Amino acid sequence: MVILGIDPGLAHTGWGIIEERRGEVRCRAYGCIETSAGSPLAVRLSHIARDLKGVVERYRPDTAAIESIYFGANVRSAIPTAHARGAALVALSECALEIGEYTPMQIKQAVVGTGAADKRQVAYMVRTLTQLDHDPHPDHAADALACAICHVNLSRTRALTGGEFYQQRGTGY
Amino acid sequence: MVILGIDPGLAHTGWGIIEERRGEVRCRAYGCIETSAGSPLAVRLSHIARDLKGVVERYRPDTAAIESIYFGANVRSAIPTAHARGAALVALSECALEIGEYTPMQIKQAVVGTGAADKRQVAYMVRTLTQLDHDPHPDHAADALACAICHVNLSRTRALTGGEFYQQRGTGY
Repeated sequence: MVILGIDPGLAHTGWGIIEERRGEVRCRAYGCIETSAGSPLAVRLSHIARDLKGVVERYRPDTAAIESIYFGANVRSAIPTAHARGAALVALSECALEIGEYTPMQIKQAVVGTGAADKRQVAYMVRTLTQLDHDPHPDHAADALACAICHVNLSRTRALTGGEFYQQRGTGY
Repeated sequence: MVILGIDPGLAHTGWGIIEERRGEVRCRAYGCIETSAGSPLAVRLSHIARDLKGVVERYRPDTAAIESIYFGANVRSAIPTAHARGAALVALSECALEIGEYTPMQIKQAVVGTGAADKRQVAYMVRTLTQLDHDPHPDHAADALACAICHVNLSRTRALTGGEFYQQRGTGY
């Protein structure tokens, strides 16, 4: 199974592709879509949507996972991220991908084992878990890969327990 | 000139088309895109983007105007609106439309003359200004028409003063 993870943001949208085979995950690719603060908002958002569609066309993921917005963040920083997240979700939906949504805390918990992990710990654990020979860079790409790993782990839990898929649908933005 | 106005929202995205000719504005059409709270977020957002593109194809506006997000709103209500706004902006940008962005206060000021106007006053003034024989309904559609009127008024101001177009680019979400 090939999973696309996304860490949305207006200036930087991280993306990462992981492949899961017989319980092992490997990183296939990652990157970061950057938009210029000098461009109109609509141009930046369509740039994000277009580039994400390009990633989907290139790597043909089976499913996608996206980080949700941390409500503790102040509204001024959360609003641009929510715009970018809206653009990303439209792109994924137009590619007919199913989408898992995970909170920052769920993602850190899944890769580091604690919701209080910092950026360096996340990057280090992503490197180890996906058998990369270097820390993924920038942080946005590492976070996107971590989101994809979180999706794999929680899908496994669902398969093992036969329970509901623990997903932030409806409540998680 | 034909202007598309938009009042974005996750559950309800109002839209309105006005036509300006020799200083007079007329309403050509208006409506509201409704999405179901039971659907996944990505499906709701692509529904908004798709339907807005349908409005653009049908009425061929020359330009668009969209309401920005009121920062005084609490973050839980602002975040879904920002997602919908991101989806709408991607759709408009993909239709190659230029977009004016206006705060709720600018819009009320433009149609009623005071930023403290209520919904009924806005609907009544939109009806009068666009020569409709009824108040536009629902409020989301009235607000979208008001946004389009605001765009016309501020474009006129710019033409008269030869000054910069007063637009919420960059700072207004």
